[in-house]
Amino acid sequence: MNTAAGSQKQLDRLDRALSAGTLGDVANLMGELSPGDIAHLISSSPPPFRHVLWQLLEPEQEADVLNELPDELRNVFLEEMQPEALADIVGKLDDDDVADILQELPDALTNQVLEVMDEQDRARIETVLGYSDDVAGGLMSTDTITVRADMKLEVVLRYLRRHAVLPENTDAVIVVNRKDQYVGLLPVRTLLVSDPGVSVREMMDTTRDPIPAMLPATEVARRFERNDWISAPVIDDDGALLGRITIDDIVDVIREEADHSLTSLARIGEEDTFSTVLHTAPRRAIWLGINLLTAFIASSVINLFQGTIEKVVALAVLMPIVASMGGIAGTQSLTVLVRGMAMGHINKRNEGWLIGREAMVGVLNGVLWASVVAVAASLWFDDWTLGFVIAAALIINLITAGVTGAVLPLILQRLSIDPALAGGVVLTTVTDVVGFLSFLGLATLFYM
Amino acid sequence: MNTAAGSQKQLDRLDRALSAGTLGDVANLMGELSPGDIAHLISSSPPPFRHVLWQLLEPEQEADVLNELPDELRNVFLEEMQPEALADIVGKLDDDDVADILQELPDALTNQVLEVMDEQDRARIETVLGYSDDVAGGLMSTDTITVRADMKLEVVLRYLRRHAVLPENTDAVIVVNRKDQYVGLLPVRTLLVSDPGVSVREMMDTTRDPIPAMLPATEVARRFERNDWISAPVIDDDGALLGRITIDDIVDVIREEADHSLTSLARIGEEDTFSTVLHTAPRRAIWLGINLLTAFIASSVINLFQGTIEKVVALAVLMPIVASMGGIAGTQSLTVLVRGMAMGHINKRNEGWLIGREAMVGVLNGVLWASVVAVAASLWFDDWTLGFVIAAALIINLITAGVTGAVLPLILQRLSIDPALAGGVVLTTVTDVVGFLSFLGLATLFYM
Repeated sequence: MNTAAGSQKQLDRLDRALSAGTLGDVANLMGELSPGDIAHLISSSPPPFRHVLWQLLEPEQEADVLNELPDELRNVFLEEMQPEALADIVGKLDDDDVADILQELPDALTNQVLEVMDEQDRARIETVLGYSDDVAGGLMSTDTITVRADMKLEVVLRYLRRHAVLPENTDAVIVVNRKDQYVGLLPVRTLLVSDPGVSVREMMDTTRDPIPAMLPATEVARRFERNDWISAPVIDDDGALLGRITIDDIVDVIREEADHSLTSLARIGEEDTFSTVLHTAPRRAIWLGINLLTAFIASSVINLFQGTIEKVVALAVLMPIVASMGGIAGTQSLTVLVRGMAMGHINKRNEGWLIGREAMVGVLNGVLWASVVAVAASLWFDDWTLGFVIAAALIINLITAGVTGAVLPLILQRLSIDPALAGGVVLTTVTDVVGFLSFLGLATLFYM
Repeated sequence: MNTAAGSQKQLDRLDRALSAGTLGDVANLMGELSPGDIAHLISSSPPPFRHVLWQLLEPEQEADVLNELPDELRNVFLEEMQPEALADIVGKLDDDDVADILQELPDALTNQVLEVMDEQDRARIETVLGYSDDVAGGLMSTDTITVRADMKLEVVLRYLRRHAVLPENTDAVIVVNRKDQYVGLLPVRTLLVSDPGVSVREMMDTTRDPIPAMLPATEVARRFERNDWISAPVIDDDGALLGRITIDDIVDVIREEADHSLTSLARIGEEDTFSTVLHTAPRRAIWLGINLLTAFIASSVINLFQGTIEKVVALAVLMPIVASMGGIAGTQSLTVLVRGMAMGHINKRNEGWLIGREAMVGVLNGVLWASVVAVAASLWFDDWTLGFVIAAALIINLITAGVTGAVLPLILQRLSIDPALAGGVVLTTVTDVVGFLSFLGLATLFYM
């Protein structure tokens, strides 16, 4: 039962009940929440709470709640279940969701579950399981309602009425030919306002091209976004209808896609907000280790100029400024590119323009802040040479940062390395090395 | 006309036509694309191309394409139009989209447009304009189909058939009482399978609570996500029906919300991938300037230890390592928190647990990498004191980073400052200052 408007109040009451540890109240309150709200409650609870909440669920709620949980968390609960219990739950879900779940489970368990399912269910699930969940086929549900183009609308209406219930998000019935190939869509909103006497052929929409089963999930999401679809038919290479994808699964794809850029650029990996210490520490440690390597590279650059630093210790005081400004400017460019790529905005035609833009921005902001830093540094250490040196180094580094931030992701993509993931590390190495090298190098020229 | 499957091929042909400058072909190809695809084509073109493409549009395409364009870009085109042309276009759009557009325009222009609209349209638009676009009221469309609970379904079906066309994404008709207050929903999928003889009251879903007009857009989005809604009714404080929100607008909210964390943490602001140099440079310059201030603070810390650095120049070589490791670790914690907040996962009950988790992760990874650095530094400079000093500083800084990254966004939120926007700057200042202070401070103790 769904109580969206009430849910906030109830979640608050739940918080109190949980803190108070009055599990009876918690169970009652949870009975009133929608599966989505319960899933949200569980995933926004630290691990110790989570199993308590799960235990308190009524069995008939489990399937829908599981379906709303983030994959990682869902699998934790699933792996603790018996195959029979699993198959039972799985029977209650749309088969795209079932496929999602089974894809994540150990094969042994998956097979056990498939065995205890009935013929027909198994056949349908196995179609979807045939595709990985990052292509259209893996996102689709096979329960579709299909009609023939030569039917009259009144026949369609009678046919629909024979169903006890229609699949979720049925905004259109799918028109297929004898060979079960996709022909067009008959939107329900057309069906409802049209004269029952006319034929499907006269009213169907044939301008909506179906989605090939192997189309990448992100591209599917973009087509849904661009065309405001609620559902879309999925076909195989011969144009035969396989199933349909619905907006609710696309919303998840969009979330995960957007989340990927953020977590990758921040070097945390796809992490559950409430992962335990022992789960979190190693994932982050790897990135810290990689950063340590790049930091040592930067240090070895500084090491070349020990002599200069001993002579002009002010260099040691100012050098972090050059590196840090380069790091920020580079991250700005990198993020714009990574974001543009995720939105599918970057292509051969415009990447040259982008690199040029980033270079120019580097020049302008380089000159702007270099002059500020030059004056500040000169006055601080009463040494105008120092001011000139840091200004020159800053301009060099900001231009390098801008160009690198734009070119790097394009190169990484060509090498099919994830730009968001690898970009930040390489970038900061470049801006650190160039920053220290230009600053200390120029200083050596002028002071030694 | 929509050609999703063909769109990629066509976009490629367009690219060639554009590069070749054969505008005739471009115009023809654009005629075949869906508004979404055209909008995507325009927004993924550098500014010089954009106006060319816009000029090539057929007038009847303009309204739908505008509707699919990102706000910033849309306004560029709108502001070049005559009020009459605008009003004409605006007449073709859903009124939530119209409201979006008018909210962005200069008031003078808005009023001119409203004046040239007809009575009824204006009244409806003004309802929506009464709400800012970051609350439910600003997202809603007022064209709803309402029925009474005592109607028989056959009456509803006849009533629907009287419409030439139903509003987009009509997955349910809204049931209201005499006072026009929301009573429940009659899903179309129920309507289609139910016996026409029964009454709306028997079949309607009363468990779906409506959305209050003042509910924040992000919370509305979460409810759609959690409950897999296609549309939801919006009510005022007296429960009177104001309109409905549809999933296509929610998808945009989710995109923007996710995008906000990314762009804020990267300090680029909500920026169009293809903004011109003069538009981009100043926005980024501000953040570089702020970073410059914090960098000078870090430098002034180093400045305190000139004497120590002159004596042990290796300190200058190694100090960036301590700062950089702290920066990465802090960003990891900060991002996890900012992301958790955006997803509504963080609350009083779990924030304590999170801070503790981040501290512990800091301890573990601190000890791990400190020992590595200690050995590396000691061997590099053949000085075990140096190894001990940097190890101690690194542990101190990684713990500080973890705790600050977790506590800072919570504090900023209490002060209702955007954690994503301000978090990064404050964080790196802390990790730089603590990094240099602990490293050089300890070194001074041991060497002076």
